[in-house]
Amino acid sequence: MIEIDPERLLKDLSTLRSFGAVGNGVVRTAFSDIDMASRRWLAEQLANADLKASVDGVGNVIATTEECSRSLLIGSHSDTQPTGGWLDGALGVIYGLEIARSYTEAGRLPGIGIDVVSWMDEEGTYFSSLGSRSFCGEFTDAELFELPSVQGGSIGDLLQRVGLGETSRSILDHDRYLGYLEAHIEQGPFLEKTGHRIGVVTSIVGVRDFVIRFHGSQNHAGTTPMNLRRDAGMAAVRTIHGLDRMLAATARDKTVWTFGEIRLHPGAASIVPGEAQVHLQVRDSDEGFLDLVTRQVEAHVEDFGRSSEVGLELESLQDAVRAVEMDDRMQGYCAHAAEVLVPGEWMRMQSGAAHDAQILASKMASGMIFVPSIGGVSHDFNEDTGADDIVLGCQVMAAAVGAILQDAAK
Amino acid sequence: MIEIDPERLLKDLSTLRSFGAVGNGVVRTAFSDIDMASRRWLAEQLANADLKASVDGVGNVIATTEECSRSLLIGSHSDTQPTGGWLDGALGVIYGLEIARSYTEAGRLPGIGIDVVSWMDEEGTYFSSLGSRSFCGEFTDAELFELPSVQGGSIGDLLQRVGLGETSRSILDHDRYLGYLEAHIEQGPFLEKTGHRIGVVTSIVGVRDFVIRFHGSQNHAGTTPMNLRRDAGMAAVRTIHGLDRMLAATARDKTVWTFGEIRLHPGAASIVPGEAQVHLQVRDSDEGFLDLVTRQVEAHVEDFGRSSEVGLELESLQDAVRAVEMDDRMQGYCAHAAEVLVPGEWMRMQSGAAHDAQILASKMASGMIFVPSIGGVSHDFNEDTGADDIVLGCQVMAAAVGAILQDAAK
Repeated sequence: MIEIDPERLLKDLSTLRSFGAVGNGVVRTAFSDIDMASRRWLAEQLANADLKASVDGVGNVIATTEECSRSLLIGSHSDTQPTGGWLDGALGVIYGLEIARSYTEAGRLPGIGIDVVSWMDEEGTYFSSLGSRSFCGEFTDAELFELPSVQGGSIGDLLQRVGLGETSRSILDHDRYLGYLEAHIEQGPFLEKTGHRIGVVTSIVGVRDFVIRFHGSQNHAGTTPMNLRRDAGMAAVRTIHGLDRMLAATARDKTVWTFGEIRLHPGAASIVPGEAQVHLQVRDSDEGFLDLVTRQVEAHVEDFGRSSEVGLELESLQDAVRAVEMDDRMQGYCAHAAEVLVPGEWMRMQSGAAHDAQILASKMASGMIFVPSIGGVSHDFNEDTGADDIVLGCQVMAAAVGAILQDAAK
Repeated sequence: MIEIDPERLLKDLSTLRSFGAVGNGVVRTAFSDIDMASRRWLAEQLANADLKASVDGVGNVIATTEECSRSLLIGSHSDTQPTGGWLDGALGVIYGLEIARSYTEAGRLPGIGIDVVSWMDEEGTYFSSLGSRSFCGEFTDAELFELPSVQGGSIGDLLQRVGLGETSRSILDHDRYLGYLEAHIEQGPFLEKTGHRIGVVTSIVGVRDFVIRFHGSQNHAGTTPMNLRRDAGMAAVRTIHGLDRMLAATARDKTVWTFGEIRLHPGAASIVPGEAQVHLQVRDSDEGFLDLVTRQVEAHVEDFGRSSEVGLELESLQDAVRAVEMDDRMQGYCAHAAEVLVPGEWMRMQSGAAHDAQILASKMASGMIFVPSIGGVSHDFNEDTGADDIVLGCQVMAAAVGAILQDAAK
């Protein structure tokens, strides 16, 4: 029912890429001048597709179909990592544009529309998933302005600086939405390794972040005998080694854990480190399991601290992301569309990465589809996906959207 | 025979401290404006003590007693760490000034002098022990100018910049020197912990520095399953853990080893580290043992690399410092002086830190004495030593110097 135009899709993706292009990659972090410019461009394209489009008070591009009381929300985010790939987020946003435009051209079903969105700051340059959280009503205006930015200062300061301080925000209308559908690159190697072209997402993993701080004594590395040291660096290494073994023994089939940051202070060849800091992140699709792991990490750190000369301090970061299931009906629409277009060449899979759909899922029926990432690479200039897979992903999504709208019209 | 003036000693130490004082500490890194100013001040004080004093072509302050054919060289360095203590180096330099001055005042032995020195850049801001290496003839002028600076560029550029490019260097005269004596704060906790007031140094440890680099694959921490990761950070942690156990099993009584630097790239919570770098430093007073440890480290890293998905690369840094013994006769003079002044309250000990005496020891009979460091603290603004210990150290050194000069006059 909705017939997309592959050439127009690839051309628009390429235009969005040109905002912040660096080699094969893109630098278009949230709220940067180039990000704001790309959002104004996107709103123009959506307006040309006969939607009512604007940039709202947190920088979300929201485009609504007028004169309809029910609508399907589709899109993703167009901000990038500091050194990001060209498709992460952008793919789902341009799918939204192309599908809404094709729906308009095909002639809309009476009273049933498509709304398209590009969320602000999914990548957390200032505040992770700020745009989708705002849309889902997670904070009042006053709370929003007080939110601490990862970069220091408040989100209120940031919004004033980019000229959004006085702009009103779009907050979801519960009665309007049939659901939310988001397409994204997989950002992992599964589809490619198993020879599948489409992933239908079953769940998005939850994330637990821990910071462990070690307080020892800074000393001269030549004159301080081993038995008198309180070496924060070695305490960090032993704690990581122990936690890694504990996690390997506890892990479920798809649990992942990462020690992405190890910082020693002062970090010089001839100085016994006085302070150290380690970041541990654990991801799993089962909230109960993540709670269990949290208790185990706490117990392990406490045990180690009791037997160590070095002081340990564990902080469970507040912005934990809860694991969510994708809506069964949404999964069904996507699976059906994939099976019709590429029989046997699609699979159901969990998402190891966080997405705006995780936020939306608490408010409406939500679903996601994935297209393959070449070599599983993402958050990197080398991120890429074949043009045929890009086009196929949009066709599958368009078919799923068409079926959802038709069923809603019945 | 040489009677020092405690008040004058403490006053001169305090004046030198005022060059670059920051709170209780001092910032007077080699070749900085404040370092150069302090060296001109020091040369003036030495000239006032009837020595021929100047700043040479690498910034060494060298003061010689004229009209004598044989001399004892005494001193230390007056440059500091980036955030240094007020006594590290400065103590031994001002001891030199006070002892030479007192010797002049007491009336010199015919033909036998004291030369005083403040070496340049012992701390290695640009090139470790540059001044004493220069004096010992480790490089020609051409080689000196080509030396790479730790800060980038060459030592030649640096010397031009501070106006020493055309100044000639003092190179040691083998026939002149009876030996070299250096006093220093201990920079460790032994004297204080064992209730001793003077340390007579038996040897200075050798140092071996290793950098281990890990080459893995940078990946998304959510979407990359554990069994497909090439995590450079975890490879670093496992290597450190293994090397630490190996070193603990091999170590002699006073061997020390330090992993002072661990760097992950990119070092972000949600990214599997693609690269890591670790610095290992091992110190021991036995060169043969250090060579053995080097072979063991090489074998361990090679073994780990063979069984790891991550590539490992070991670099033994070129500027290894060789362990040296202090001269027996010099030790004897210092021990005798200490036993006369504080019977039973002195000890023989090795130096875990490197010193200019390590460089001088290959060219002439060299000795060192230590005074206690409060809390074992050094390379830190909080470094300190009690005034009574400062005065005692100078009296012990003056007595040792007096005995050396008298024996030489016989």
